[in-house]
Amino acid sequence: MVGPEIERLIQLLSRLPGLGPRSARRAALRLVERRESLLIPLAAAMAEAADKVKTCPVCGNFDTVTPCAICADPRRDASLLCVVEDVAALWAMERTGSFKGRYAVLGGLLSALDGVGPEDLGIARLVERARDAAVAEVILATPATVEGQTTAHYIADHLADCAVSVTGLAHGVPVGGELDHLDEGTITAALRARRRF
Amino acid sequence: MVGPEIERLIQLLSRLPGLGPRSARRAALRLVERRESLLIPLAAAMAEAADKVKTCPVCGNFDTVTPCAICADPRRDASLLCVVEDVAALWAMERTGSFKGRYAVLGGLLSALDGVGPEDLGIARLVERARDAAVAEVILATPATVEGQTTAHYIADHLADCAVSVTGLAHGVPVGGELDHLDEGTITAALRARRRF
Ligand SMILES: [Zn+2]
Ligand SMILES: [Zn+2]
Repeated sequence: MVGPEIERLIQLLSRLPGLGPRSARRAALRLVERRESLLIPLAAAMAEAADKVKTCPVCGNFDTVTPCAICADPRRDASLLCVVEDVAALWAMERTGSFKGRYAVLGGLLSALDGVGPEDLGIARLVERARDAAVAEVILATPATVEGQTTAHYIADHLADCAVSVTGLAHGVPVGGELDHLDEGTITAALRARRRF
Repeated sequence: MVGPEIERLIQLLSRLPGLGPRSARRAALRLVERRESLLIPLAAAMAEAADKVKTCPVCGNFDTVTPCAICADPRRDASLLCVVEDVAALWAMERTGSFKGRYAVLGGLLSALDGVGPEDLGIARLVERARDAAVAEVILATPATVEGQTTAHYIADHLADCAVSVTGLAHGVPVGGELDHLDEGTITAALRARRRF
């Protein structure tokens, strides 16, 4: 009953987080209703993002410049390296405005169930970065979940012979909590009270 | 901190129904993370929809063919004309599988507050369609809200001198309910028990 073009739009929209099949249908309709003011600009914004946004080869952040603006910023403290699960966690960190170091984005967490191993997360490369003389502290900011803490312990073990302090975010991050769902104040408090891992 | 390309993507996504500012951010990240499997196909699907999906000049439905597949289908009963608020309501009607007539999509409801008058909804054109000898019944399926029923009464008044029955959906549609939020069974029951308006 709905044409294949709109069916495909609904099906792709339903893969966005926060949109189920019904809300994807409503979103598709809204798009077609607002062809000039929403559908065409959004299609263009997506094509532009697909064309211009790259993964930073240094830290794994998304940006249109390579390396990313954070890695390229000489005012960022190269002695602090914050390890996060994904770019959403990096953005959540940045929104606090209280971290002035650099990042390593894992792009996931260790998971036997999902078959995610250390090589998938670039942990060897992270350990190499931590060996740089400029790095004094690695902050393990993976989530306070079983997988997040398993990943943090794995990384901490592999940093044991590096000349860096290894710290984790302080309690204050709710158990089971993802950084991206936390308010800025909680993340800031957890960062300030970070403890030796 | 986030580049302007991603900011623009987030801003446009947040205008979709069901996505607030936070979920729009998560959706943008998901898109950039899944560049090949989601971002590029969705940008293409949107461009294709913008290019191919048109408003049917007869009924106001969206389709890639003109007139739309419903208007062009000779098996649809030309004696029944169902008046709906928008294409979402038309789709909700179609999902029931229990209506075999044709549609008139208003594209809104009368609203003094929003400055929506009869000319914005093409009501004169609807009355013209209802004058066609083939049309025996006009079903006013606008929502059971104040604006929906005001609009239905306005249309019924203007159909008074046409040789058509004017009916409305039966009680069964919850008061204040939008068609698109109803299950198929409720819509089917309301349609079967439709009453003279
Ligand atoms: Zn970077
Ligand atoms: Zn049509």
